[in-house]
Amino acid sequence: MTPIVLPVQPLTPSAFAPFGEVLALEGADSFPINGGRTQRFHALGRVRCLGRDANVVLSIFRGQPLVPPVLDLMERHPLGSQAFMPFSGSAYWVIVAPPGVFDPDAIQAFLARGDQGVNYFAGTWHAQLLPCDPDADFLVVDRDGAGQNCDIVRLKPPRTWC
Amino acid sequence: MTPIVLPVQPLTPSAFAPFGEVLALEGADSFPINGGRTQRFHALGRVRCLGRDANVVLSIFRGQPLVPPVLDLMERHPLGSQAFMPFSGSAYWVIVAPPGVFDPDAIQAFLARGDQGVNYFAGTWHAQLLPCDPDADFLVVDRDGAGQNCDIVRLKPPRTWC
Repeated sequence: MTPIVLPVQPLTPSAFAPFGEVLALEGADSFPINGGRTQRFHALGRVRCLGRDANVVLSIFRGQPLVPPVLDLMERHPLGSQAFMPFSGSAYWVIVAPPGVFDPDAIQAFLARGDQGVNYFAGTWHAQLLPCDPDADFLVVDRDGAGQNCDIVRLKPPRTWC
Repeated sequence: MTPIVLPVQPLTPSAFAPFGEVLALEGADSFPINGGRTQRFHALGRVRCLGRDANVVLSIFRGQPLVPPVLDLMERHPLGSQAFMPFSGSAYWVIVAPPGVFDPDAIQAFLARGDQGVNYFAGTWHAQLLPCDPDADFLVVDRDGAGQNCDIVRLKPPRTWC
């Protein structure tokens, strides 16, 4: 099937608000700590970890570009938020749909800069990691524990973006 | 008072084990996800959030170098872990002492590369952020909530490092 082409938007907190939080400096409030030597941009995101027998863990994902850029599945984690912060400078695409019953007409695509993180709400549908560059490294903050925490949906037709 | 000079060690998981976890690729186990396009270096660190009425939050710290490099206080957060992941590439110094009663003879200094994070255990004594470069940005994962979660100790004499 010929892919549907999604228009790519820049990643901003307001545009991303239905899906999660943007972890970035611009537009964020801050206050000085460490005797004025550090600015704390506080609580840009909040971690959610639902259900029993679970921990919040810190992992690293090293991702490769999707070639060709044809997306045929999305996933969600109903029991926890999931944050991605790039630390090797790679920009990446963020393709999402709102939490709840999957709506293929509600998919949106964003381009995140290499100094912008995202924190998906629990249940937000999202593509797997889509870095622009090879060997792109991300700190990931998510839930590890008992329970079914990954649902998958197939995209027919698939999506691409520009 | 003339500062005591701490020898600086490279940051490795084994050397840092009394104080917390190192968030870095080398020596870490991983497994493929996302159809083989991503390697997950899973649970390099675990987030702790103790006490009531508290959340784990995602913040950004923008830090400046300590000039001159003379350290006269350390702090600890007894109710939660605190993770720092640099994302603007700056190396940074990590100066720590083990959790428990503060022991000035047990202070150790490490140099973390710009692609290495740290996750302090709850209660680990540590210096405030000590980046090598100006405008150094870090994603921070820590606890936000009720309760006394910051103790401070003064260093007499102060410490420097080389």
